Amino acid sequence: MSVAPTGAALDAAVLESDHASVFHSWSAQAHLPSFVVAGGERCTLWDHAGNRWLDFSSQLVNVNIGYQHPRVVTAIKEQADLLTTISPATANATRAKAAKKILRQLPDSFQKIFFTNAGADANENAIRMARLFTGRDKVVSRYRSYHGNTGAAIAATGDWRRIPNEYSRGHVHVFGPYEYRSEFWAESPEQECERALQHLERTIQCEGPESIAAILLETIPGTAGVIVPPPGYLAGVRAIADRYGIVLILDEVMSGFGRTGSWFAFDDHDVIPDLVTFAKGVNSGYVPAGGVAISARIARAFDERVFPGGLTYSGHPLAMAAIVATLDTMRDERIVENAALVGKQVIGPALAELAESNRLVGDVRGTGVFWAIELVEDKGSKAPLPAAQMAEIKQQLFSRGLVPFISDNRIHIVPPCVVSAVEASAGLSIVADVLNELAEAPA
Amino acid sequence: MSVAPTGAALDAAVLESDHASVFHSWSAQAHLPSFVVAGGERCTLWDHAGNRWLDFSSQLVNVNIGYQHPRVVTAIKEQADLLTTISPATANATRAKAAKKILRQLPDSFQKIFFTNAGADANENAIRMARLFTGRDKVVSRYRSYHGNTGAAIAATGDWRRIPNEYSRGHVHVFGPYEYRSEFWAESPEQECERALQHLERTIQCEGPESIAAILLETIPGTAGVIVPPPGYLAGVRAIADRYGIVLILDEVMSGFGRTGSWFAFDDHDVIPDLVTFAKGVNSGYVPAGGVAISARIARAFDERVFPGGLTYSGHPLAMAAIVATLDTMRDERIVENAALVGKQVIGPALAELAESNRLVGDVRGTGVFWAIELVEDKGSKAPLPAAQMAEIKQQLFSRGLVPFISDNRIHIVPPCVVSAVEASAGLSIVADVLNELAEAPA
Repeated sequence: MSVAPTGAALDAAVLESDHASVFHSWSAQAHLPSFVVAGGERCTLWDHAGNRWLDFSSQLVNVNIGYQHPRVVTAIKEQADLLTTISPATANATRAKAAKKILRQLPDSFQKIFFTNAGADANENAIRMARLFTGRDKVVSRYRSYHGNTGAAIAATGDWRRIPNEYSRGHVHVFGPYEYRSEFWAESPEQECERALQHLERTIQCEGPESIAAILLETIPGTAGVIVPPPGYLAGVRAIADRYGIVLILDEVMSGFGRTGSWFAFDDHDVIPDLVTFAKGVNSGYVPAGGVAISARIARAFDERVFPGGLTYSGHPLAMAAIVATLDTMRDERIVENAALVGKQVIGPALAELAESNRLVGDVRGTGVFWAIELVEDKGSKAPLPAAQMAEIKQQLFSRGLVPFISDNRIHIVPPCVVSAVEASAGLSIVADVLNELAEAPA
Repeated sequence: MSVAPTGAALDAAVLESDHASVFHSWSAQAHLPSFVVAGGERCTLWDHAGNRWLDFSSQLVNVNIGYQHPRVVTAIKEQADLLTTISPATANATRAKAAKKILRQLPDSFQKIFFTNAGADANENAIRMARLFTGRDKVVSRYRSYHGNTGAAIAATGDWRRIPNEYSRGHVHVFGPYEYRSEFWAESPEQECERALQHLERTIQCEGPESIAAILLETIPGTAGVIVPPPGYLAGVRAIADRYGIVLILDEVMSGFGRTGSWFAFDDHDVIPDLVTFAKGVNSGYVPAGGVAISARIARAFDERVFPGGLTYSGHPLAMAAIVATLDTMRDERIVENAALVGKQVIGPALAELAESNRLVGDVRGTGVFWAIELVEDKGSKAPLPAAQMAEIKQQLFSRGLVPFISDNRIHIVPPCVVSAVEASAGLSIVADVLNELAEAPA
């Protein structure tokens, strides 16, 4: 009789078994990462050997409430005992509760929630609603954006992931404001804002405003670099949308539910969208879920007209139970307020100091627990730090006990929203140490 | 202090709350069904008032293992205690186990599993793999098919749901074999098969074989009418795919994991596909999950090349735990064998008799617990029974304690795979009673 492996041997066995049978996202399958996760709690993860890491990634920036929050775990278990699954055509108490709790965090103009499995199909369905509502075809979105991996969502995406997947028609891309690397030769945030809005409006005019169903924007582009828009930009987009009868969809999949230190990123900007897409933070990914929050004027358009979209697991009871518990917990434990405070008192100041002192740090930006450090070869040229050095940084952070989120030439500082000041400081020290050692190493 | 409603008052409260806040799939929102589900067990559902229904729909033909199977519920709860969520970039023991258990039910040529949230994104990613593997663009699928509600999946779909959603390019549709309503003027199953294959091959030749990445077929078209292909058709499709270097994707989202009385519908046909998409029955929808089973030759193509697709909840731990427990339970309790037996001994004979005796029954067809009754105004003209009468039938079945699955002019007989002979007989009696009363009513 063979003895089941434990500890490091179990990690090795899991890794071997995983690599033999599981096909991984966004990867060359012969070059997979080797991080085995056995469990987690709050901001900490561990493997079977007992190695522990502080998570500064929230996985894919989704575990806002931290790992294994007991209230959410309990809610999932209780719902599992009650009813795991039921079709969207029925009515179910937990689903109605989840919809109400989400609506409570949104402006009064929002009336209904359409539930999906994740962010991609949330964007698919928001685009569908906009097209049917307007009777128009095109969707304007941004370069430097990510909206999901399915048909219309990936075609709306602005980064490299779109290029091999571009089979949907009707997508137009514009540049957004990005002060550190302005596409508009701007010399101030005001100028960047004004010119980005002019560029958007000119593109719409040239495409034909009567052909454009939606403007789809991540309120704060996330994986693209936590690019916080300058004051006035989103209000300007809203005005342009109104001017031409275009539906404004804000993608809050990554930025929503506490990430920015507010319930939604757009709460801090002078704008109310027509549709909001969400996923991730709504239940921290404890059960797959996403959705579209729909303003009354768009919802009403489907009172008598069949909405031609749907999915088997829309409003799945386990996902709904996790949403109800997550939102209650976030309110009761003031988790959004914690994210705001840690951002303001710990992360922001630490990154500002790093930007000042470290020759490789070109820019730092963010809000709440949603930040990016942009690394450059030198501050004058702003040439991005090469991929090989980014890989080395990633390895260094990981080996010192930090799970980082690395994208292009950036380290994103995106811990769970429950991160404490002490944990945030500890993680930022590791980041500073690694970057300072690299900056001081002979070239 | 107000007293919380119970019983029928609670049903009414849930319904009101649902209709106020939840936006429903495939519906006009002012005309939603009023079925409140409070709980379920095996093949039975109930509302808060204690009304009970025998489920002949498996919801959206997904609850193959029945409601609240204790082993699967326990597995979900245990995994919830261990680790609810982890990103696809990590390795996790439960995920590797789930992949292995699925692969064990597939032919040896299959090597890896890519996990998704559901069937739509399974088809999206299978299409993506086929396009990248072949370097070609077009996807051939069938009229009378459904492949999901996102970009490429809905464009591949052949029914009305495609029409308002057709924004993806590169999709070509053909007719498949459908003996009851032949598109090919065929007079025998052999002729239908031969002519459907010729039609498929001629379409491919006219589109340009070198432009075609994939043939995507539901092994047995499901919502389109449980259209079991004639012997030889799928083997013929395989030969055509091979002749032109086209990837063959079989969509087993509805037909897989026991529905047909086999593990996969294609097990009963002389064909091995290159990619298999699945969802629903893999864990009965207890936790949202789907995926693509990938043959070795396609998996290997992404060993050194990055696969440009992915999603946050790919291989979600709760979904994986539900898969492992579901597949173990289905094997241990011989649930697939039960589906085969009930189909052969109870459903098949009962429907054959109904087809014989009832003037409205134009055709019956199916296998396992996957059947359709096609209703017509008269057997000569085969004119479909009008929508108003189908709505009346639906209402009648429901009021007599049966949850039906109605699609166009058909009643689908699709109970959970755990349905007993006694339950199947009881449900079929209700169906027969309603249809016989309708047939005997004065026109």
